Amino acid sequence: MSGRSVPLEIGTAVGAADEHHVQVRGLDLVDDLIGELTHTEVALLAVTGRRPTPAEAKVVDAVLVSLLDHGLTPSALAARLTFWAAPEAIQGAVTAGLLGAGSVLLGSMEGCGHLLTDIAAEVAAGAGAGDAVDTRLRAIVDAGERIPGLGHSLHRDGDPRAGKLLDVAREQKVAAQHVEHLKLVVERAAALTGKALPLNATGAAAALLLEVGVPWRLHRGFALMSRTAGLVAHIGEELEAPIAPAVRAALRAASRIESEV
Amino acid sequence: MSGRSVPLEIGTAVGAADEHHVQVRGLDLVDDLIGELTHTEVALLAVTGRRPTPAEAKVVDAVLVSLLDHGLTPSALAARLTFWAAPEAIQGAVTAGLLGAGSVLLGSMEGCGHLLTDIAAEVAAGAGAGDAVDTRLRAIVDAGERIPGLGHSLHRDGDPRAGKLLDVAREQKVAAQHVEHLKLVVERAAALTGKALPLNATGAAAALLLEVGVPWRLHRGFALMSRTAGLVAHIGEELEAPIAPAVRAALRAASRIESEV
Amino acid sequence: MSGRSVPLEIGTAVGAADEHHVQVRGLDLVDDLIGELTHTEVALLAVTGRRPTPAEAKVVDAVLVSLLDHGLTPSALAARLTFWAAPEAIQGAVTAGLLGAGSVLLGSMEGCGHLLTDIAAEVAAGAGAGDAVDTRLRAIVDAGERIPGLGHSLHRDGDPRAGKLLDVAREQKVAAQHVEHLKLVVERAAALTGKALPLNATGAAAALLLEVGVPWRLHRGFALMSRTAGLVAHIGEELEAPIAPAVRAALRAASRIESEV
Amino acid sequence: MSGRSVPLEIGTAVGAADEHHVQVRGLDLVDDLIGELTHTEVALLAVTGRRPTPAEAKVVDAVLVSLLDHGLTPSALAARLTFWAAPEAIQGAVTAGLLGAGSVLLGSMEGCGHLLTDIAAEVAAGAGAGDAVDTRLRAIVDAGERIPGLGHSLHRDGDPRAGKLLDVAREQKVAAQHVEHLKLVVERAAALTGKALPLNATGAAAALLLEVGVPWRLHRGFALMSRTAGLVAHIGEELEAPIAPAVRAALRAASRIESEV
Repeated sequence: MSGRSVPLEIGTAVGAADEHHVQVRGLDLVDDLIGELTHTEVALLAVTGRRPTPAEAKVVDAVLVSLLDHGLTPSALAARLTFWAAPEAIQGAVTAGLLGAGSVLLGSMEGCGHLLTDIAAEVAAGAGAGDAVDTRLRAIVDAGERIPGLGHSLHRDGDPRAGKLLDVAREQKVAAQHVEHLKLVVERAAALTGKALPLNATGAAAALLLEVGVPWRLHRGFALMSRTAGLVAHIGEELEAPIAPAVRAALRAASRIESEV
Repeated sequence: MSGRSVPLEIGTAVGAADEHHVQVRGLDLVDDLIGELTHTEVALLAVTGRRPTPAEAKVVDAVLVSLLDHGLTPSALAARLTFWAAPEAIQGAVTAGLLGAGSVLLGSMEGCGHLLTDIAAEVAAGAGAGDAVDTRLRAIVDAGERIPGLGHSLHRDGDPRAGKLLDVAREQKVAAQHVEHLKLVVERAAALTGKALPLNATGAAAALLLEVGVPWRLHRGFALMSRTAGLVAHIGEELEAPIAPAVRAALRAASRIESEV
Repeated sequence: MSGRSVPLEIGTAVGAADEHHVQVRGLDLVDDLIGELTHTEVALLAVTGRRPTPAEAKVVDAVLVSLLDHGLTPSALAARLTFWAAPEAIQGAVTAGLLGAGSVLLGSMEGCGHLLTDIAAEVAAGAGAGDAVDTRLRAIVDAGERIPGLGHSLHRDGDPRAGKLLDVAREQKVAAQHVEHLKLVVERAAALTGKALPLNATGAAAALLLEVGVPWRLHRGFALMSRTAGLVAHIGEELEAPIAPAVRAALRAASRIESEV
Repeated sequence: MSGRSVPLEIGTAVGAADEHHVQVRGLDLVDDLIGELTHTEVALLAVTGRRPTPAEAKVVDAVLVSLLDHGLTPSALAARLTFWAAPEAIQGAVTAGLLGAGSVLLGSMEGCGHLLTDIAAEVAAGAGAGDAVDTRLRAIVDAGERIPGLGHSLHRDGDPRAGKLLDVAREQKVAAQHVEHLKLVVERAAALTGKALPLNATGAAAALLLEVGVPWRLHRGFALMSRTAGLVAHIGEELEAPIAPAVRAALRAASRIESEV
C-alpha cells in the first residue's frame, strides 16, 4: 500500500488548540473557563455556543442530577458485567451501560423534546397551543404509539422527579413556553386516553432543555452525560463489592445442560 | 426453552428507588439533590459515598472542564462519523468517541493516578517522598515505558491546563500530599531522563482527583464524564455543519481502485 | 450494602454448558460442530434453531462475503482511530466501527427485509404480489422516505454485488418468493419514481436472508458478523501501516487556533 | 466555522472500490469471492493478505465455531439487556456484548498467542523449545500472573473444546511448531505450579491461529467474529422469549428502598 494524497476541507467551531492555548467556542480554556465555570456551564457553552446564565446552569444541573442513577438498572448491570470481564478498559464498561440509552428508556426524552418542538413550531405558525397539542397527541395515539414523557413503569402514581424539575425551572424563571405546552400535553393526554398518565422525569427534562436552548436532537446526549457519572459510581462499587460473580453463577445455573433422567 | 428459577443475591449502595422516591447514597433525590447540588457534586457523592465540600466540587469542576474538548480529536471524528451513519442512535455515536479513551490518550490519567497512589503508599509505610518517587520513576524508565502525566505531543513547552489546575487546587486549599508528590515527579523525571517533560493536564487531573478521594481506578471514568459533553457538542455541530461527507469523500478517493494504464 | 436474595426465572435455548460439554441448540459442540460445520453454518444453526442445508450455507456465505469490506469507509476509519488511541482494547476498536452500522448505511438491509416481510404477509393474506408491492412502495414514497435496498451513492449505475448475490441464490435453488418480490420492488420503484434505482447489495442480502429463514429484525446482525472480519483486517493493517497519525495531524491543522493578523 | 483545506495522505491494501467494482486484497469481490469462498476464507484473506488453503480454512472454522456460544454468559446478558432498552439499534446491543471480550474472558487467547509468539522467537534465535517455555512460564508465575490459555472456571477437569481443536489441526496437517510449543506449555505448567492446569479453548485457538498466520495481536479479533454470531442468536431469542423483564424485576427488587420499621 502506498498512501495517496487526498484533499480534505473540514473545520469546527466547537474547540481549537495550538501549542500554547486551548479554546472552547472561542473562549480561552485556561483564562476564562477552568476554575471559573462548572462542568455543566462549559457543557452548555460547548453545545449551544453561548455562555449560559446562572439560572440556566442551575436548571440544567437539576436535569442532569435527576437522571444520574436509578438503582440497579439494566444499564448499570451491563456496565458492571462488562467491567468484570474487561477491567482494564473502563471506557468499554461505561459504553456498554450507555448503549442502553435507547428508545425504551432514556429515548423518551428525545421523543418528548421532538413533540414539544413540533408544538412550538405550530404555535409560531399561528395555531392555538391547545389545538397544536391535540393534533399531535391524536396522531401519536392513532399510530398506536406511546406519548413520550408520560408514565413510568415503577412510579405509577407520578414520578417524584418531574414536579421538582418544574419547580426548579419556575424558581429560576426559566420555565416559559415549552413548560406551558408540556402541562397542556399532560392535561390533554389524560382526556384523550382516559388514563392517568403522569409526567415523568424525561418529559420534564426535555421541556427544560428546550427552554435553555438545547435542540431536541441532543436531549439524549444530556442523559448520557448524566448517566455516565452514575455508571462510574457503579463501576467503583463493582471494584469493592462485585455483583458480577453472583450474576454469572445464576446465569450458569440457568443455562446448565439438563441431565437426562 | 423453559425458564428456570435460580437464586440471585445482589445489592448496591449507590442508589435505590421505590414507587415514590429515588435515593442516591441514601439521600433523597427530590428533597436533597435536585436543585440543591450541581451535577458534579452529585457525581462525587455517588462515586465517593460522601457529599463533597464546595472546594472539592470546584476542583473537580476544574478537572472536568479542562478535558472537555481539544478541537477535532480522533475521538471527536469517530463520534461524528458514527453519528452520520447512524443518526437515530446518538448513544452509539457518543460511545464510539468514548472508546478512544484508552492507554494512548486519556489513559495516562489513570497511569498517573496509579503512580501517585503507589508513592503515597510507600510514604505511608515510612519511605521518604523523594526516595519513593525515584524508585518508581526508575522502574518505569527501566521498563522502557513513558512516565504517565508528563509531556504532550502538541503542547511541547508545557500544557497550559496543568498549571491552572494546580492553581485552582491551591486556591481551594485542596492541594496536599498528592500535589506535592506530583511536583517531585516532574522534578525528578527531568533529572532522571535528561529531557524536559512538563506536566500535562491528565497528570494534574489525577493528583487533584486523588486529593478529593477518587481512587485511581476511576480516574479515566472522570475523563469520560468530561468528554461526553464535548462529544455531544461535536455531534450537535455535525447536525448543522457536517464534516462526515467531506471525510467520506476523501476516504473514497484514498481507497479507489487504481485504473490500469 | 448487604446483598438481598431475589428470585430470577430465566433460560435460553441457544446454548448450554456443564463441566464436560457445551451445546449449541442441543447439538454437542465437540462431537457435532467443531471440525464438522463452518462458522457460517453454526451461526445459522444458532440463529434459526435448525441446521442449514449446504445450499443455505452457501447463500449466507455469499451475503457475508459481499458486505465484508468496502475500502476505507467511515466505519473502518472510526475503528482504526480508536485502535490507535486504545490499542490494548481491540474490542473497543471493532465496536467503534460496528456502531456505524446504522440507518444510513447497513441499516437499509433491515429496512428492505422489513419491506419484503410485509409484502409476503399481504400475499399470504390473499393480495396479489404486484398490488402488495405497489401499496408498500407508495406509502414509502408518500412519506418522503427512501426505498430501502435500492440505489448506492458510489455504484450509481448498479451495485455489482447485487446481481451476483441473486445469481448465487438461483444456482443454489434458494431463490423463491422473496427474491421474486424483490424483483417486483425494483421494477415498480422505477415506474413509481421515474428514476433508475438499481438494486444494491443490502437489498439482495435481505431477500436471501429471508429465503433461508432469518427474520428481518436480525438482518443487520448479519451485516455486523460480516463487517467484524473486515474491521479486524483494517486494525491489523493499522498495526503495520498506521493511518491514524496522518488523520490526527490533518484534524489538528483543521482545528488549529487561527492567529490574529 | 469555515472549513479549511488540509492535506491528508492515507491508503489501504485491505479493500478498494470504484463505480463498477469492489476488491478485497486485490481480488474482485464479484468475480473471485462472492459465491466462491466462505466468509471464513475471505476473512482470512482480508486479514493475512493471502488466500487460505482449504485446510487452513477448516482449522479457522473450527476455532470460530468453538467460541461462538457458551450459554448465558455475562456478555450475552449485557447484549440482551441493551437490546431490550434500545431495540432500534441492534448494533449497540451486539457491541455491549462484545465489549466484555476483555482480559478476564476471551483476552486469554491474545495472551496465549503472545506467549507462543515469544517462545517461537526464542527458538528461532537458537534456544531449545523446553528452555524457552520454562523461561517464559517462570517469568509469568514469578509475576504472580495466570498462565494464559490454561484452566477454566467451569471445565475444571479439562475444556472439551481444546482437545478437539488440536485434533482438527492435526487431521488438517496444520499443527506444527506452535502446537508443539503449546503442548510443552501444558506439561511444564503442571510441573512448575504443581497444579493440574488443563488446556482451554482459547489456548488451543491461539496456537491454531498462529499456525495459519494470524498474528497474536489480532487473536481477540477472531473471538469477536465468532462471538458476534452467538450474540445475534441471543438477541433473536430476546425478540421471541425475552429474559430482560425478569432480570429487570430482580434488579429492582435488589435495589428497592428498604422501608423503615
